[in-house]
Amino acid sequence: MSPIITLLTDFGIASTYPAQMKGVILERCPSARLVDLSHEVPRHDVRTAAFMLASAVRAFPQGTIHVAVVDPQVGSARRVLAAESAGQTYLAPDNGLLTVVLGGKIGRGTGAAAARVVSVEDRSIFRSDVSSTFHGRDIFAPVGAALACGAVLEDLGPEIESIQRLDVPAPRREAGAVKGEVLYVDPFGNLVTNVTTGELTESELARIVVYVGGAVIRGLSRAYSDVAAGMLLAYVGSAGFLEVAVNRQSAASRLAADVGTPVRIGFEAP
Amino acid sequence: MSPIITLLTDFGIASTYPAQMKGVILERCPSARLVDLSHEVPRHDVRTAAFMLASAVRAFPQGTIHVAVVDPQVGSARRVLAAESAGQTYLAPDNGLLTVVLGGKIGRGTGAAAARVVSVEDRSIFRSDVSSTFHGRDIFAPVGAALACGAVLEDLGPEIESIQRLDVPAPRREAGAVKGEVLYVDPFGNLVTNVTTGELTESELARIVVYVGGAVIRGLSRAYSDVAAGMLLAYVGSAGFLEVAVNRQSAASRLAADVGTPVRIGFEAP
Amino acid sequence: MSPIITLLTDFGIASTYPAQMKGVILERCPSARLVDLSHEVPRHDVRTAAFMLASAVRAFPQGTIHVAVVDPQVGSARRVLAAESAGQTYLAPDNGLLTVVLGGKIGRGTGAAAARVVSVEDRSIFRSDVSSTFHGRDIFAPVGAALACGAVLEDLGPEIESIQRLDVPAPRREAGAVKGEVLYVDPFGNLVTNVTTGELTESELARIVVYVGGAVIRGLSRAYSDVAAGMLLAYVGSAGFLEVAVNRQSAASRLAADVGTPVRIGFEAP
Repeated sequence: MSPIITLLTDFGIASTYPAQMKGVILERCPSARLVDLSHEVPRHDVRTAAFMLASAVRAFPQGTIHVAVVDPQVGSARRVLAAESAGQTYLAPDNGLLTVVLGGKIGRGTGAAAARVVSVEDRSIFRSDVSSTFHGRDIFAPVGAALACGAVLEDLGPEIESIQRLDVPAPRREAGAVKGEVLYVDPFGNLVTNVTTGELTESELARIVVYVGGAVIRGLSRAYSDVAAGMLLAYVGSAGFLEVAVNRQSAASRLAADVGTPVRIGFEAP
Repeated sequence: MSPIITLLTDFGIASTYPAQMKGVILERCPSARLVDLSHEVPRHDVRTAAFMLASAVRAFPQGTIHVAVVDPQVGSARRVLAAESAGQTYLAPDNGLLTVVLGGKIGRGTGAAAARVVSVEDRSIFRSDVSSTFHGRDIFAPVGAALACGAVLEDLGPEIESIQRLDVPAPRREAGAVKGEVLYVDPFGNLVTNVTTGELTESELARIVVYVGGAVIRGLSRAYSDVAAGMLLAYVGSAGFLEVAVNRQSAASRLAADVGTPVRIGFEAP
Repeated sequence: MSPIITLLTDFGIASTYPAQMKGVILERCPSARLVDLSHEVPRHDVRTAAFMLASAVRAFPQGTIHVAVVDPQVGSARRVLAAESAGQTYLAPDNGLLTVVLGGKIGRGTGAAAARVVSVEDRSIFRSDVSSTFHGRDIFAPVGAALACGAVLEDLGPEIESIQRLDVPAPRREAGAVKGEVLYVDPFGNLVTNVTTGELTESELARIVVYVGGAVIRGLSRAYSDVAAGMLLAYVGSAGFLEVAVNRQSAASRLAADVGTPVRIGFEAP
């Protein structure tokens, strides 16, 4: 059975652009199984795409090929990257989109967990007439199909040692608190922060107080319905990040919060 | 060939949540064929989901597995249901979502048409680390995959005799008329009522007058284009319910109608 | 491996109507591979659907079956067409939707490039209980499935010599300029015009000046990023038409342009 190919773009399903990518893939690798991660990434928002990709890939089996095309520089000299990390394969423009999934781990010498990255340069794999505005169809789709039907990373181009990275904010400790921010707002209006539970001790998690958008949330809930409808809660979300929500409503609207809104994590006295 | 698995959620295609469910399903049952019923159920609207599910399933072949996750109580003690009825299999939270597809028919003793329902409790089928906020990925997807690749209902948990039900409004006869209401507004703005043709005699259907939102519609049309653009019509819709539409426009906007709007069916003198 | 079936409709993914078509197809041709071209055609907009279909089909392999249902006259006497042209198969209502993909080429006598078109009349292929409002599910889906699983055009009905056509505007030469208009606005707000490069000489392309919505754009760009963010550009789009965009913004909003907005192509003195 051929690998799964996922597609993540900002093309929008009101266009036929995602479908055109699928037509090219199925022509070149008829047995490919296609899954849309989403085509509704906010337009040109590479940072949100990087987060969406990273939070979704863990649900996919080893050997899945993830094709992510949010590409404001399409047609310019920006490179096309193919990467392998932790059993997953990625194709994306070299614009920071792979920042989160690849973390700091690039290069041969850094052990089993490291990513291998190549710059895709073998034009014989591309469609014969590459447009300058739709590399999703003309470059990424045929390269994804080639990988799904047997090509290996080395076939595509030279290995490289560094890629473009986004400046993804890391939470920091300051005066007995952890200062983070909102990384992503999901379609429910839930606020996904950049703070993971790995950054807090068990004792701190038990005494957590979350400050965001003027609100104060004491303690972690387990499920939305742990609080009454309309009430705020903080919890560890399904992607492993600390999240803030309003049961049955939108926390983004309630708190006028968006990507970048500061979040402060304090702790009750033990 | 493996069964079809359909997905109905309120997650929205702007999120990767539907895709994460698919990743889990394809890892555990690679031959599953996936069809999105819709991921745009109005958020937390179990009643609309129940209607959408019931109106869609008849188009699917016997043996299809329908996974429906509109689940405001995710993470609470609400049960997870698996059911078989009329050759179709259903997975859903026990919150009323299966009210319409299962009708009144639950239990062993009620004949061939009856539904069998189990409470899904075998945690060994679930993902190893079940989150409290995303059971679609961590419980429903793996159970759906198990059913598609050979598990049977009895494997999942104990059979049960009753489930949560929505209070779905039934039309009633009153003073020579039938009083119903709008059950669902489709994306065209067509009004689907809770009145089926089975509730009216042939003679009544021939003399029907529909009153809704201040408008009066005499007689049934067969097709939208039976009336001029911009004109109201009543007709028997593709799901078997009486519907009201405006040719080429939205009846919901024209009549300021929504789910719950009263509809009265009267009859011309014979 | 069975052919690909693509679906193009104005049903909207908030409805289950696209899914119901898929259920019917997979019941009758279980091995069919389904691809959504889009279900977000503006409601009843046959002209936009005709353009979207024509711009997408070239990305699909020979033998693909394209089922396009934007059908304001559903239930009336309008015919159902099945057509073959250039290795692709089409199913659509006879309302102009196939105008662009079939061009002027219908009938046996006109050579290898000509289209064959039949009026689909064999009701034994349809669902047993055809509704008058949802031929997508009851007629187009089962006929598409039949074609995917072995039926040939001759099985479906009599060959016909002419079809309904839209009045698709052609660009025209006037006073040393080419006068065209906007055919389609994509979800990015890019303006796709009805002018193809085939209508201009190499020398004219090198000296091109595009006038649209009060703006003047001198010369062709290759990629969006050839100009600064927020600047206008003209370029040859991925579907072969002259397009106008704003880098990282919407040209439709900037220029208050829509389908039908006039576009004038002039030329600098050589």
